[in-house]
Amino acid sequence: MTENLTTIVSSATKTVEINRHNPTVIIGERINPTGRKAVLAALREGNFDIVRQDAIRQVEAGAHILDVNAGVPGVDEAALMKKLINTVLEVTDVPLCIDTADLDALTAALAMYKGKALVNSVNGEERSLSNVLPLVKEYGASVIGLCMDDDGIPETPEQRLAVAAKIIERAGKLGIGPENIAIDPLALTMGADHTAGRIALDAIELIVKEFGVNITMGASNISFGMPDRKYINATFIAMAIRAGLTCPITNPMVKEVAIAIQAADLTMGRDEYGMHWIKSFRKRQQAAQA
Amino acid sequence: MTENLTTIVSSATKTVEINRHNPTVIIGERINPTGRKAVLAALREGNFDIVRQDAIRQVEAGAHILDVNAGVPGVDEAALMKKLINTVLEVTDVPLCIDTADLDALTAALAMYKGKALVNSVNGEERSLSNVLPLVKEYGASVIGLCMDDDGIPETPEQRLAVAAKIIERAGKLGIGPENIAIDPLALTMGADHTAGRIALDAIELIVKEFGVNITMGASNISFGMPDRKYINATFIAMAIRAGLTCPITNPMVKEVAIAIQAADLTMGRDEYGMHWIKSFRKRQQAAQA
Repeated sequence: MTENLTTIVSSATKTVEINRHNPTVIIGERINPTGRKAVLAALREGNFDIVRQDAIRQVEAGAHILDVNAGVPGVDEAALMKKLINTVLEVTDVPLCIDTADLDALTAALAMYKGKALVNSVNGEERSLSNVLPLVKEYGASVIGLCMDDDGIPETPEQRLAVAAKIIERAGKLGIGPENIAIDPLALTMGADHTAGRIALDAIELIVKEFGVNITMGASNISFGMPDRKYINATFIAMAIRAGLTCPITNPMVKEVAIAIQAADLTMGRDEYGMHWIKSFRKRQQAAQA
Repeated sequence: MTENLTTIVSSATKTVEINRHNPTVIIGERINPTGRKAVLAALREGNFDIVRQDAIRQVEAGAHILDVNAGVPGVDEAALMKKLINTVLEVTDVPLCIDTADLDALTAALAMYKGKALVNSVNGEERSLSNVLPLVKEYGASVIGLCMDDDGIPETPEQRLAVAAKIIERAGKLGIGPENIAIDPLALTMGADHTAGRIALDAIELIVKEFGVNITMGASNISFGMPDRKYINATFIAMAIRAGLTCPITNPMVKEVAIAIQAADLTMGRDEYGMHWIKSFRKRQQAAQA
């Protein structure tokens, strides 16, 4: 096992340290119009109330970083991204994860952002590596590296490790150290392949063993098409934390998922005297009584 | 990684195969008067209704094997054990786990039991090894090996591995192969030591890597003294299944725990097409509507 690296993500006033000694860092996934019709419609109309609400509620529910995605088809993504970031900064001061495949939007976001952003994402495709990494370097950001390349998402854990290695190597050549990279080994849906969860967990372990980097993952894709998804997502996240996941992208407002993350941190010995667990329990108790 | 062994436990009519390819085998823990005042009182009065109920309900909730413990202070344990086994066999045909530290009770139980019982337990103490293992051999049973010895429960995963090795070696000398042994690395309470969960998980991984044996664990001790124990137990079991746990001793009537085990099996790729998950979901749906 190599050393465990610390990834820094910050806003103008808050710094989050992601590593395997601290409790799991939650990246809130909700500020994203993909698959959310009401959000899509509101953003088209220039109504940002849902965005404010999603920002406030996710932070209240335990999000340490907020993912911001401005992918509304037919809309100028750079302009919308700037508006979204300003809206989120009105109501919270947690660091942000800039989630876009649009280079103009990414550049605009990084140019206006105060602090060390987390860029979501670069991948192993030649075009992505050569376009995104220089921006990450220029703005001193951290970056999520997806384990896919020009041939798509590799099938085996070993192949995903190879893509992670390629991203880390290419970043290194630009002076971006592995401490600034969180790898996403990618979780496919178990509805299509019942070994998808196992492959993702094995990939996490391999990558952590080899590089000691932080690991992120959009952990709800795994249960797509299955009933009672919240239970699958909660269990999968806990198992992935054991495997080496440190900063999942998820919805902390789903009670089952939030509790599983806290219980997993407790089990991993990252919650001294169980103080965090007991505090969360009291919060749940108060909420139930209210 | 050594090969994954298969442990057989059977009744007169049913055989359970414990291994890492099959879904997790649940050993129901409820037929045990320890800490259950109502059961203790009923057994003292010769009332076995609760035992019948616990047997039926645990099997309905998914138990594949039932643990039977007759530890009532001041009562002839051998006589009570025989009565308990007969009572359980009246209402179910799943294999049994004979849970006693009393050699007479163990001998009586093994002598009357039809099938291949699971003996709970031998440990690394000299007295236990020399008394229990010959009985296991004589009756062709399988056995749970606890990672403790004359010096108590060792602190580190490596020391627990050493006790497991000693038990496996001593059993081997009597002709009891490692496929007949399920090791319990022991989970202490996190309330006393917040690294107890981490130590148990690391011990599981070490022992599985070295011997490929099946792993059992009384997985509720971990949360003793904490609030919202069911969530901790559910998460801990899922993480332990990832680490290599194959046959937890637990209460399948706790919904959170039963669901976490099913979701963990799904995530580990042991539930082809998610058929078992979908079936359980429908069962929950029907129960909610009833």
